[in-house]
Amino acid sequence: MASNSIGEIFRVTTFGESHGAAIGAVVDGCPAGVEVDESFIQHQLNRRKPGQSAITTTRKEDDAVKIISGVFEGKTLGSPICLLIENRDQKSSDYDVLKNIFRPGHADFTYEKKYGIRDHRGGGRSSARTTAAIVAAGAVAELFLKKTGIEIIAYVEQVGKIRTEKKYSELDLTLVDSNMVRCPDENVAMQMIDEIEKVKASGDSLGGIIQCVIKNVPVGLGEPLFGKLQAELAHAMFSINAVHGFEYGSGFASASMFGSEHNDSITQSSPISAPLSKGEGRSKSHGVVTTTNNAGGILGGISNGMDIYFRVAFKPTATISKKQSTVNSEGENILLKAHGRHDACVLPRAVPIVEAMSAIVIADSWLRNSLSRI
Amino acid sequence: MASNSIGEIFRVTTFGESHGAAIGAVVDGCPAGVEVDESFIQHQLNRRKPGQSAITTTRKEDDAVKIISGVFEGKTLGSPICLLIENRDQKSSDYDVLKNIFRPGHADFTYEKKYGIRDHRGGGRSSARTTAAIVAAGAVAELFLKKTGIEIIAYVEQVGKIRTEKKYSELDLTLVDSNMVRCPDENVAMQMIDEIEKVKASGDSLGGIIQCVIKNVPVGLGEPLFGKLQAELAHAMFSINAVHGFEYGSGFASASMFGSEHNDSITQSSPISAPLSKGEGRSKSHGVVTTTNNAGGILGGISNGMDIYFRVAFKPTATISKKQSTVNSEGENILLKAHGRHDACVLPRAVPIVEAMSAIVIADSWLRNSLSRI
Amino acid sequence: MASNSIGEIFRVTTFGESHGAAIGAVVDGCPAGVEVDESFIQHQLNRRKPGQSAITTTRKEDDAVKIISGVFEGKTLGSPICLLIENRDQKSSDYDVLKNIFRPGHADFTYEKKYGIRDHRGGGRSSARTTAAIVAAGAVAELFLKKTGIEIIAYVEQVGKIRTEKKYSELDLTLVDSNMVRCPDENVAMQMIDEIEKVKASGDSLGGIIQCVIKNVPVGLGEPLFGKLQAELAHAMFSINAVHGFEYGSGFASASMFGSEHNDSITQSSPISAPLSKGEGRSKSHGVVTTTNNAGGILGGISNGMDIYFRVAFKPTATISKKQSTVNSEGENILLKAHGRHDACVLPRAVPIVEAMSAIVIADSWLRNSLSRI
Amino acid sequence: MASNSIGEIFRVTTFGESHGAAIGAVVDGCPAGVEVDESFIQHQLNRRKPGQSAITTTRKEDDAVKIISGVFEGKTLGSPICLLIENRDQKSSDYDVLKNIFRPGHADFTYEKKYGIRDHRGGGRSSARTTAAIVAAGAVAELFLKKTGIEIIAYVEQVGKIRTEKKYSELDLTLVDSNMVRCPDENVAMQMIDEIEKVKASGDSLGGIIQCVIKNVPVGLGEPLFGKLQAELAHAMFSINAVHGFEYGSGFASASMFGSEHNDSITQSSPISAPLSKGEGRSKSHGVVTTTNNAGGILGGISNGMDIYFRVAFKPTATISKKQSTVNSEGENILLKAHGRHDACVLPRAVPIVEAMSAIVIADSWLRNSLSRI
Repeated sequence: MASNSIGEIFRVTTFGESHGAAIGAVVDGCPAGVEVDESFIQHQLNRRKPGQSAITTTRKEDDAVKIISGVFEGKTLGSPICLLIENRDQKSSDYDVLKNIFRPGHADFTYEKKYGIRDHRGGGRSSARTTAAIVAAGAVAELFLKKTGIEIIAYVEQVGKIRTEKKYSELDLTLVDSNMVRCPDENVAMQMIDEIEKVKASGDSLGGIIQCVIKNVPVGLGEPLFGKLQAELAHAMFSINAVHGFEYGSGFASASMFGSEHNDSITQSSPISAPLSKGEGRSKSHGVVTTTNNAGGILGGISNGMDIYFRVAFKPTATISKKQSTVNSEGENILLKAHGRHDACVLPRAVPIVEAMSAIVIADSWLRNSLSRI
Repeated sequence: MASNSIGEIFRVTTFGESHGAAIGAVVDGCPAGVEVDESFIQHQLNRRKPGQSAITTTRKEDDAVKIISGVFEGKTLGSPICLLIENRDQKSSDYDVLKNIFRPGHADFTYEKKYGIRDHRGGGRSSARTTAAIVAAGAVAELFLKKTGIEIIAYVEQVGKIRTEKKYSELDLTLVDSNMVRCPDENVAMQMIDEIEKVKASGDSLGGIIQCVIKNVPVGLGEPLFGKLQAELAHAMFSINAVHGFEYGSGFASASMFGSEHNDSITQSSPISAPLSKGEGRSKSHGVVTTTNNAGGILGGISNGMDIYFRVAFKPTATISKKQSTVNSEGENILLKAHGRHDACVLPRAVPIVEAMSAIVIADSWLRNSLSRI
Repeated sequence: MASNSIGEIFRVTTFGESHGAAIGAVVDGCPAGVEVDESFIQHQLNRRKPGQSAITTTRKEDDAVKIISGVFEGKTLGSPICLLIENRDQKSSDYDVLKNIFRPGHADFTYEKKYGIRDHRGGGRSSARTTAAIVAAGAVAELFLKKTGIEIIAYVEQVGKIRTEKKYSELDLTLVDSNMVRCPDENVAMQMIDEIEKVKASGDSLGGIIQCVIKNVPVGLGEPLFGKLQAELAHAMFSINAVHGFEYGSGFASASMFGSEHNDSITQSSPISAPLSKGEGRSKSHGVVTTTNNAGGILGGISNGMDIYFRVAFKPTATISKKQSTVNSEGENILLKAHGRHDACVLPRAVPIVEAMSAIVIADSWLRNSLSRI
Repeated sequence: MASNSIGEIFRVTTFGESHGAAIGAVVDGCPAGVEVDESFIQHQLNRRKPGQSAITTTRKEDDAVKIISGVFEGKTLGSPICLLIENRDQKSSDYDVLKNIFRPGHADFTYEKKYGIRDHRGGGRSSARTTAAIVAAGAVAELFLKKTGIEIIAYVEQVGKIRTEKKYSELDLTLVDSNMVRCPDENVAMQMIDEIEKVKASGDSLGGIIQCVIKNVPVGLGEPLFGKLQAELAHAMFSINAVHGFEYGSGFASASMFGSEHNDSITQSSPISAPLSKGEGRSKSHGVVTTTNNAGGILGGISNGMDIYFRVAFKPTATISKKQSTVNSEGENILLKAHGRHDACVLPRAVPIVEAMSAIVIADSWLRNSLSRI
């Protein structure tokens, strides 16, 4: 059934197959009057696009966005915003050989069995190419969020077994885009790049972890019971191809903590009238802060004014050049050796996707929260 | 805004505060003709209810369910099923002292700021008591799923730092309810119980991890792009109080694996016509199986016929008897020492909640999938 | 599928069969802080309840409402408000004879064929008794609307062939409840009552028309394209049992008008700063008014600040005491002579139902409109 | 808020302003495997397009549809179908003079006040041009419905004061497209055409009534309580620009009928095994039919297998060449004389729009009904 929309009020519907005429998104519910900086949307798409650096796929997708509707004289009209990205440089013939083969780690088998038909070219609708539409829609959400002061920053924390041990608060998050792997810990970034190149040369692939921080969130975002902020964020992150895990705040580590360790003490910072700070864990909560932030900025599904932070685990890219056992649509066991142009590690390109998804959730939550009381 | 419903087709709406007249759920969209075994619903509620064993809270909630509508002569009518559970044994006066205090680790502060009003008695709407309504609705989902052959089994894998190292496939899952901590690894269960009793005596609390397995799932459940099965499951799990992490299949461990390790080889098991087995990772996919199951039974958001399994991390119970720093509604810093009757570890009682949430998601996905093709 | 909810933000879900334990509604999405006057809700229910006057059915349903959740110390909490009305004085045995008979004009046949099962007692879920839950939920919407100054008034314009020829603006709408047929044109009301009594005595039934006026509506309610105010109102009215027609503003008469007749001239009333009036067609639009109101207060799906008015046609009550031809569930042609206690004309009791449905739509539209711009 | 979608399962989202780059629709939830005849979609668009005959506007919009996604090798994939129609021949400069003027009968004033911004060119989002997207999406619904045997036929019953007195069952509905006014009563059609030409010459405009018949509907479509078939149809019809009234079956006339007249007797036609007929009021209900059809094929919100029929009233076109009083955005009273190229009567072009909207509702209802029982 219809399941290509996300968001209750700020509602994004995406469409498009990897090798069809175009992919795109319709953003319905964005309030009127938002200034639309088209170059910002394009900038975010460029951060996601393939071929942007030596460690990404050599496919060249321009990913030029076109605003079809909903914007007039630089501002949103309150009507649906259709964003269109044409598909170019698609080499569909690369995929002819895969028409009747179910690739391991891909959705070929499940799409075929679910729908009885499948666009095998580039993975069709299951392709990660569909995330370009998400990035475009997410950029509109970020433009909307500008007026709120909320900031969303994601970065690569781990690639394969290489990871930064620094907390987000110990890193300079303005450096995320300063290297091509998008890890703001410079030394670790270099090791990650080396690792990606090595693994790429071997025909294999890598997974990793992205951390995301959301700052200057007012108290009140998130709707109990089934619109809890962590539930909406988790839902959005697991909508991204290849994601296998999500944790916020203390996450899985909380399982082995005592309550007395985990509970964040609450305190009234002074003076209440002090300007809002952007430091870790500082608050937009009228002076009420917690001294630690195991809660990850969310209590009872509602933001408490502290930083929201979470981690997203990605499995290694499914497409590899090594031989793999699988079956074809006739049910015969075969050996498959994939061709095509793919990323050995998608993490650097996934950073703007995580940000886009977060922006959609936060914009939606912001609007939903505005209805909380008379 | 309205956010107390979950599910697109099999749609559950819950209502009720901890110390109000009653809590309950309306199940709308359950097909007509499902046999409703009221004693099964009550049985699941009894598995969740407080006071059921020496290691749970001493509060005694009967949690007797009453079916108000939607069932006639033992079968569902196709109209909404209202399930009502009266609140009894509530000692609201226990909470008078908390009227103007924001408890650490609880949602008092966020509810107060979001809504400008708060039912402080027992946590009001933010209370885990609301999960009783979920368990009742989930039991209806399980009754619906009976005809599909799908089985859902959750168990406690970890309490604090004590965990079973056995995989779900190495455990006898029929033993989950054989001990009061609901861990089917008997030796580990005994240690968990000891630990809970020790920590309870010290006035502190514990978190833990629940693992859940879903067997005999047909190929096709889950709706791309934003109704992916893992996204719906994650959303449901993070709707449960105290959950801080979710991973499925290889989970966070996938981040440090190579693609060649992670991809599950696909093979045609023989003979195709063999009866379906309920063993680990065996398939309802017409003989097409994977030799490993890092995918956790889901590819591209759609079930592939292998077992679905996932892990859910719970933070330690927020209510502890130790002194904690916090603020009151006047903005004064104070010291709080909680009273009341609470669980030192909610994990044993959370097992049926995880199952109920899973059942709601799977029932909904099953119905959504029936619309996939003409 | 789940279809027992109405409203996007102010969302009402109803449940219950005519002869089950209870019927009720869950109102989700009502903002926190609304003062809940329980006696007002009961008052509206009393206006709908059977047995209230000589011209209604002799069934006595107390229709006592109980607020189960969502209200604390007289105010809404922002959590779902469950309203419960127990079913009493149900004489289910009256219906035993109908178990296998499809009554003409009723939904017996369609429910049986759609669901394969049917609660035949009192019409089950298809009974107009379900509108009591709507009236209760609508009363909550009216309490919410109090702060907006919007007023909703419905009255009986026509019963059978007897109708008032006066426009709503020529009537004193404070007199609606001054007679038992709820027509504020006293002389016509007397004729209507005579007609109902005469037809009742003959064992037959009557239909009629209700007119509804909504005053003091701000400019901006209604959401293009598929949330147009007239579309939402029409949807709500056709959700009421027995409704066969809906028109707003000039309605069907507009079909034979010229554009130059129909277009309402727009003018700037002076002075702009004058206090808002509650007279016909006066405006909440900052001084911009139309000199006529064929538009019925809605242009492009959005309220323009003039009065909204519409007419709703009801077919005659389906239950009559005359003999009728029909079939039973064995497919045999039979003659049916109904018993039971029914209204010869439901119009007087339908007035609060039309108001309740309107209030739900307007409350929802008011909240939706608050999201229109930044 | 997001309100540009219609349908629960077969879900259509439209986008686009009259003079923007393009308008279009995303159809999400159409099952996989539907054969997509692109020429049929174009054919329906051609029936709606301006400039198609002497009595329509002289604007020439090609309205060439492009399928962007969701279709592969002639069949639907189960993924969203994006349909794009470029805007050409738009003379935006025609509208410069209207930038600050609120046209009577149009949505200029309400959009401006609601959103604080307005695309004044050709009415922007409020333009009836947006119905082209609806016709395209409706054509996809009709392609889906092909397999069900359901037929939808609309025609012009009245233009201004000229109307056919024949019932739909007395007309040859295959003749709808045989004349340019789309009235299958040839003599009346000629009078309608004369009237339109006369009124057009005088600079004025006309409204009218469209009747729509839906044949071969199975028993069971429509979802109580708030998805009643008549409520969904009414909602869809009032979503069409200029519609002011809707009635089904006996409609407004039912208000003055007795129950004994109105109730349709039910009978078992013989033999039960006879082939289904397409004649008026004949049934797909396994031999159970009604001898009359005042119910309009719907009882309790659910189709009973008889023909569904309804009437839709359109107000006269708002744009006329006569001088009209209005105000500008400075609040000054002015006289307006419109230019531009417009229809004196939209009824002929509205026929495919009514069919498209009906098709979307019926396709959606068909899919929803498939979930009614296990």
